Amino acid sequence: MHLMPFHDTPVLPRGFRCASRHIGLKPAAKDLALFVSDVDAAAAAVFTRNQFPGAPVVLGRETIRGGVLRAIVVNSKVSNVATGAEGLARARRMAAAAAAEVGTDAGRVLVCSTGVIGVPLPIEKIEQGLRGMQGELQSDPVIGVHGMMTTDTYPKALSLRVGDATITWVAKGSGMIEPSMATMLCYIFTDAAFDAATLDRLLRRAVHVSFNMLSVDSDTSTSDTCALLANGLAGAVPEAEFQAALTAGSIRMTELLARDGEGAKHLLRTIVRGAASEDDARRVAKTLVNSPLIKTMVFGADPNVGRILMAVGKCFDCAIRPETTDAFINGHAVVRGGTRVDFDDAAVRAALNHETVDLEVSLGVGGASATAYGCDLTQGYIDENAAYYSS
Amino acid sequence: MHLMPFHDTPVLPRGFRCASRHIGLKPAAKDLALFVSDVDAAAAAVFTRNQFPGAPVVLGRETIRGGVLRAIVVNSKVSNVATGAEGLARARRMAAAAAAEVGTDAGRVLVCSTGVIGVPLPIEKIEQGLRGMQGELQSDPVIGVHGMMTTDTYPKALSLRVGDATITWVAKGSGMIEPSMATMLCYIFTDAAFDAATLDRLLRRAVHVSFNMLSVDSDTSTSDTCALLANGLAGAVPEAEFQAALTAGSIRMTELLARDGEGAKHLLRTIVRGAASEDDARRVAKTLVNSPLIKTMVFGADPNVGRILMAVGKCFDCAIRPETTDAFINGHAVVRGGTRVDFDDAAVRAALNHETVDLEVSLGVGGASATAYGCDLTQGYIDENAAYYSS
Repeated sequence: MHLMPFHDTPVLPRGFRCASRHIGLKPAAKDLALFVSDVDAAAAAVFTRNQFPGAPVVLGRETIRGGVLRAIVVNSKVSNVATGAEGLARARRMAAAAAAEVGTDAGRVLVCSTGVIGVPLPIEKIEQGLRGMQGELQSDPVIGVHGMMTTDTYPKALSLRVGDATITWVAKGSGMIEPSMATMLCYIFTDAAFDAATLDRLLRRAVHVSFNMLSVDSDTSTSDTCALLANGLAGAVPEAEFQAALTAGSIRMTELLARDGEGAKHLLRTIVRGAASEDDARRVAKTLVNSPLIKTMVFGADPNVGRILMAVGKCFDCAIRPETTDAFINGHAVVRGGTRVDFDDAAVRAALNHETVDLEVSLGVGGASATAYGCDLTQGYIDENAAYYSS
Repeated sequence: MHLMPFHDTPVLPRGFRCASRHIGLKPAAKDLALFVSDVDAAAAAVFTRNQFPGAPVVLGRETIRGGVLRAIVVNSKVSNVATGAEGLARARRMAAAAAAEVGTDAGRVLVCSTGVIGVPLPIEKIEQGLRGMQGELQSDPVIGVHGMMTTDTYPKALSLRVGDATITWVAKGSGMIEPSMATMLCYIFTDAAFDAATLDRLLRRAVHVSFNMLSVDSDTSTSDTCALLANGLAGAVPEAEFQAALTAGSIRMTELLARDGEGAKHLLRTIVRGAASEDDARRVAKTLVNSPLIKTMVFGADPNVGRILMAVGKCFDCAIRPETTDAFINGHAVVRGGTRVDFDDAAVRAALNHETVDLEVSLGVGGASATAYGCDLTQGYIDENAAYYSS
């Protein structure tokens, strides 16, 4: 894939604006964000596969069936998960309140909440907090991200041009509001013109090789949501060109989320080539990126490369042949034919100290490949997730 | 299952003896052990499913086909994994050296090695080190365990009587020689009389609910081995009674290994009831015991119970109904019908501070159950696995 020219300073596409506020869910930081399109936007979204989806995910699946969105409203601190029928009612009230503020139907507002599970959503604060936000809308996407941030160490936004159109990503995740789970929310805005069915196809293709290959800690959020809104103000863009840009930006955002994983010091990319099938390649890449012993090896910059074979080998159902298995750390060969290479220890140690560590495994049994995105495992992860008073 | 009367001080069954030595693989600690039966013992064994099995595992699968063992020889520090054809040749030399010392055939010696992957086995040191060990054999199983210990914090041995026979377990694992992987080795000795085919069946049943439900860090060793030797000197024992004792002792040894997991402060048992199938129950129990967010919750004694639902919910292919899902921490109800209970926070926090934490999930969709065994995730795990110079 060719390099995509990301903007130095991210901007929202034509017709999209956002605002954020502190409404008292968190002690001081912003905790509510509103993203609005001036006109109806065709929309597609994908949600968590967790079997305990939050109320906003249940409602969102219903909303996205309409294929049209005017706004996204999102609060942080409380996720509205495991809250039963009352939780769903409150999610609906949140949609209605945002719709009234923006001047549209509740069915054209996507609702998201992220934070602690099992705590009632403070819906009155949100209804009150939304009033007047329409008057504060601006075109800088970072303003909106501030209202959805949790323990992210900085607001994540990207944008690029594709033809006459712009695509903009805003996301939170992989740091947590309160040690809860790696909730990921990502909204993608564009002024290119596509219908909802096409957007759905484009989004699923991009997500397949980006967000669905991201793992900070193997724990699947109950709130994960990724939505794509296209308001058409820039007119038509060639679909192949748009798909390439959408995928490239989604991969870049995936890398930003992985690098900012809880406690992380490194972006870890695990690249598997020569697999018998794409499914095998994805499974081995995910197994590598999730192995605690590989993650601690990257943190410690300790070339204990036998762990790579261990992790590949525990993919019991994948086609693996030790004698054709090679492995590389940032380009340095460390395993050849299933046997540890007598490598330059200092050079590999230095490679493991790079901020980005590419761990490449060549299986030598076929032509399929995949890349997964994650981070190292550090004391910071334990600290963030053990020492927090949750309720 | 009724409580099994374990001996206060473990002993080996009649006709079994062991010895251990320091032969210079480690700086000072014992690093070679020999377990011997005075007469041929019927034997069965199960090995790692990892697709990069160590040379001793490759050889062991061949050896155990004979169904008869006289001795087990095991070294620590170097695992003889990812060492190619030369590694297998050295494993055979190790069997031959032990057989010569004991006075049997190489085909009646099980060889095990545990330690760093990808380093050549110092076979000359082992051949030399074995000479004269036959004269040092004793009946205290703990003496043998010292030669196979790694970062285990104490030698693990158990024994109990069943009828006129004794069953004795010795094991190492879940602490590592050098942060490599959670290599588990467990040898079970008995003077009861069973043929090899029966032992194989008995062992597989016991392992299914004990060692195969153990996970310290989800990383599967390339060296895991569990062997059962029966020399028959106590004569026949009723099979059902023996199976019950074998299973109970294997579960207890599993708990000891889990509690002594790297950096662990707690034994974590995840008990799943009311599942649609045994497979579902086992999968949910394993997912719970492996979730880093559950493990850090137990370490922090922080009742962030939404994480339990998150972990159950990420078992995408299991039959889960939020409205029938309940959860308990050491008996305290924390989730009812998929919704967080307004529980006594101080009481649950105190329960999480017990050395053993039982996390019970009732799925309410069927009659199957399973229990998995693991430990909490602490800074100690990161320290042990990141800071070690591996080569």
